[in-house]
Amino acid sequence: MSVRKLKLKKMPIETGKIVAILHRNDAEKLGVRALERIRIFSKQAEIVAIVDVTDKFAKEGEILLSRDCFEKYKIKEGEIVEIKPEGRPESVKYIRKKLEGMYLSYHEIEKIIKDVVEKKLSEIEITAFLTALHIRGISMEEAENLTKAMIKTGKTIKFKNKPIVDKHSIGGVPGDKTSIVLVPIIASANLTIPKTSSRAITSPAGTADRMECIAPVEFEIDEIVRIVNKTNACLVWGGALELAPADDIFIQIEFPLGIDPMLFPSIMSKKKSVGSEYVVIDIPTGQGAKIKTIEEAEDLAEDFIELGKRLGMHVECVSTFGEQPIGHAIGPALEAREALSTLYGKGPKDLIDKACTLAGAIFRMVGKGDKNTALQLLKSGKALKKFKEIVKEQGGNEKIKPNDIPIGDKKLDVKANKSGRVLRIFNHKIVAIAKEAGAPKYKGAGIYLYKKMGDVVKKGEKLFTIFAEKSTNLAAAEKLLEEEFPIVIGKQYGEEMMLKSIPTKETKEKEFILER
Amino acid sequence: MSVRKLKLKKMPIETGKIVAILHRNDAEKLGVRALERIRIFSKQAEIVAIVDVTDKFAKEGEILLSRDCFEKYKIKEGEIVEIKPEGRPESVKYIRKKLEGMYLSYHEIEKIIKDVVEKKLSEIEITAFLTALHIRGISMEEAENLTKAMIKTGKTIKFKNKPIVDKHSIGGVPGDKTSIVLVPIIASANLTIPKTSSRAITSPAGTADRMECIAPVEFEIDEIVRIVNKTNACLVWGGALELAPADDIFIQIEFPLGIDPMLFPSIMSKKKSVGSEYVVIDIPTGQGAKIKTIEEAEDLAEDFIELGKRLGMHVECVSTFGEQPIGHAIGPALEAREALSTLYGKGPKDLIDKACTLAGAIFRMVGKGDKNTALQLLKSGKALKKFKEIVKEQGGNEKIKPNDIPIGDKKLDVKANKSGRVLRIFNHKIVAIAKEAGAPKYKGAGIYLYKKMGDVVKKGEKLFTIFAEKSTNLAAAEKLLEEEFPIVIGKQYGEEMMLKSIPTKETKEKEFILER
Repeated sequence: MSVRKLKLKKMPIETGKIVAILHRNDAEKLGVRALERIRIFSKQAEIVAIVDVTDKFAKEGEILLSRDCFEKYKIKEGEIVEIKPEGRPESVKYIRKKLEGMYLSYHEIEKIIKDVVEKKLSEIEITAFLTALHIRGISMEEAENLTKAMIKTGKTIKFKNKPIVDKHSIGGVPGDKTSIVLVPIIASANLTIPKTSSRAITSPAGTADRMECIAPVEFEIDEIVRIVNKTNACLVWGGALELAPADDIFIQIEFPLGIDPMLFPSIMSKKKSVGSEYVVIDIPTGQGAKIKTIEEAEDLAEDFIELGKRLGMHVECVSTFGEQPIGHAIGPALEAREALSTLYGKGPKDLIDKACTLAGAIFRMVGKGDKNTALQLLKSGKALKKFKEIVKEQGGNEKIKPNDIPIGDKKLDVKANKSGRVLRIFNHKIVAIAKEAGAPKYKGAGIYLYKKMGDVVKKGEKLFTIFAEKSTNLAAAEKLLEEEFPIVIGKQYGEEMMLKSIPTKETKEKEFILER
Repeated sequence: MSVRKLKLKKMPIETGKIVAILHRNDAEKLGVRALERIRIFSKQAEIVAIVDVTDKFAKEGEILLSRDCFEKYKIKEGEIVEIKPEGRPESVKYIRKKLEGMYLSYHEIEKIIKDVVEKKLSEIEITAFLTALHIRGISMEEAENLTKAMIKTGKTIKFKNKPIVDKHSIGGVPGDKTSIVLVPIIASANLTIPKTSSRAITSPAGTADRMECIAPVEFEIDEIVRIVNKTNACLVWGGALELAPADDIFIQIEFPLGIDPMLFPSIMSKKKSVGSEYVVIDIPTGQGAKIKTIEEAEDLAEDFIELGKRLGMHVECVSTFGEQPIGHAIGPALEAREALSTLYGKGPKDLIDKACTLAGAIFRMVGKGDKNTALQLLKSGKALKKFKEIVKEQGGNEKIKPNDIPIGDKKLDVKANKSGRVLRIFNHKIVAIAKEAGAPKYKGAGIYLYKKMGDVVKKGEKLFTIFAEKSTNLAAAEKLLEEEFPIVIGKQYGEEMMLKSIPTKETKEKEFILER
């Protein structure tokens, strides 16, 4: 057991990690290698750090920690601290168990999640864990335990009015502004719906991005409590609330790998953390959606419902038509306009139907009506009135009209090159073009579709308009359009039988969308 | 497609990685997230870097790269460079394929290995790849392709005298100084054996650590060529030769995770890189070794032999008794003494038998004799003469005698607390105590065993001595000895039937493997 005394030095970097950089000679004398751990005994704190080894950056006799470590532990530069090698945390053993395909107990899962949140595990160890979960799969019991551990290690919010209900979509369909319509419908029926959403990760707009075109969405927990207690609802960004901080760390690693092994715990922990009792989960289904068939949707639903039971939540799932965008608008501002128009009574049929179907499912669960109740609340203007209250409490302009929301002034109209029917709209091509046009970064960028599946179209008629804030983005979108035209026009389904020719050379990458 | 112009700034850090730190606002405007990639267009070079995002460390308008990036690409601080988002490299797609359990082609494997060596993949991506290989396993064809790709992306060495032979042990048994005895035996029979070895990773001594007590072991490739062309052999450290640089990167990740999915490619690529035609592989077998049963050893051997065939190498495997340390000495200097004594004609029986058995296997493979040939070369002093030549060419003192090698002067004699026979010696406890005593960091530290399995011992007789260079290390080793006594004395095997009591409280790892 080697012990060394080293001098603390501050790195001018914010790493968010507890990593100590040692000179190679000190590391050797301590008998530690890169990625192993040491325990640092300072006057202010005992710190367990992951070791990085350098030849040059740290001098012999020094130990370097990041600026945020200095702040967190209130340690001072120049202090001589004692360093001892530290074994691997217990949780690494449990990660190895999962690698070998064994089930993990609640105790083991909690230890892993706790160490993730406390930054005791390296990126390598967390990656191995997530990869193992992806390959080995998780049992229902593990999903339950992961959810519970993620809730326990995060913050929770309590609201005064019950019942608390929620809606979540597993995502994957562009233009899905359903939540902005559904939340005020639900809240106007005196149900509490504290809706937290994400920003876009791979899509042209997340619900938080859309809502931000109408009102602020970034709040502290106590402000959210105030807004919800007053209006029964909110439409806010959930990203910085630390409801399940482990999940926020996992997403950082899952995203570049394109895996999503924590789908259930990730969604359910965030719902449970805000006290949701009744949750409806939207599963967009079909070609071009994440879930391709109704059978797959049923399997997924069964697991959501079972997990809900184990967590004391009533869960209902709805498989919805996901083969084309919802409504006409894609992109934050265009979608905000469309959602607001819908509340003002002028919405597209599919959006109205989707919002009222899902709201109706919630009403049935709590015994307060059905889809017609929802339609009634929308048509009567009660939902709009409620939405205005929410906007006001979130600090927005309650008098805002759809056309007050600015959209990009650079436009490109795209016309049909033949007459016929719209047979297919490729979601992933719509997404790619909208992103190329600048969404979600530029809120005014996106696409407005005039024609949807089944619509009759004449040669030369407008199919859609691309909106951008910058000409370079519009040009880029136009260029992509040449390669990836998103709309198929034909006379009748099956008239042209070939879906795609697959030449021997081409390597096809699976489309992956991570959206929570 | 966003483009930004940013000013290059140098971080005073040596990261060995191509990571660019951007301010959050610049990253957002570019539309890239942490761990995604950008392409940097500077006057001197086009650089693809992995993105890290900061709020504070980098200012808006700046892009930070590590000092080693500046040196590698000859870029200058203050230059305004153009930045574009860059897609994931093709190799990430292949890593994902392996995650999904698909086999990889040579083309796909080469792309991954090349990107690993060129630092185009993040630690997260490499970890996911290694974890997937560990869980999914690799086919013989993949092992062949991994080996070939690792050779292609590394350096190779050519020697003038043929045939080139080699010996490798998969390790796991303490005190295994066989190579130091075997190499001169082989070389004295005019076979070329360019032995590269590692330093200790988890053991108290690697062959490079042992040999370093006698002669220098760190050389450039051209010096190794000179030594081998002159003496037919060398005993050098292979760690910095870049024979298979991908493997050196993999080991950094495999070690903290405790996985070894690249066992075959890792060993075979290094042998093939130095042109080995005939290779004998030692598989220590039994309780306390890596491989527990002869059946397991046979399976492993079959794969080594088949892989050898595919690479154009003759491979023979030998399963050796691995239930106790080889010889009496454990620790770099103590083992160097014992190996040298053996060459001087005074070696322990098991070490002589192991070295001559493995050397004999090589002689049979090339049609130049057998085990007796090896014994003869050892007894006649020809091997010693050859060893002296090697030591001289490596810059050591050829006249060195075993007792000239310094060992730790702090000692603790450990005596038997009862009479009987030595029924078992626990390898892992011997390793732990030797490391606690300071090995391999302090070369003079270690253990000398007076009794081996089957030996009769009287109460109060010395079982072993612990050597250390520092009193604190000796005290730590003594403390560990109380918990982990490494030798079991009894009358007869089976007299005490209980091997271990396993109380209910202990966490038992369930032997349940998920169906795939």
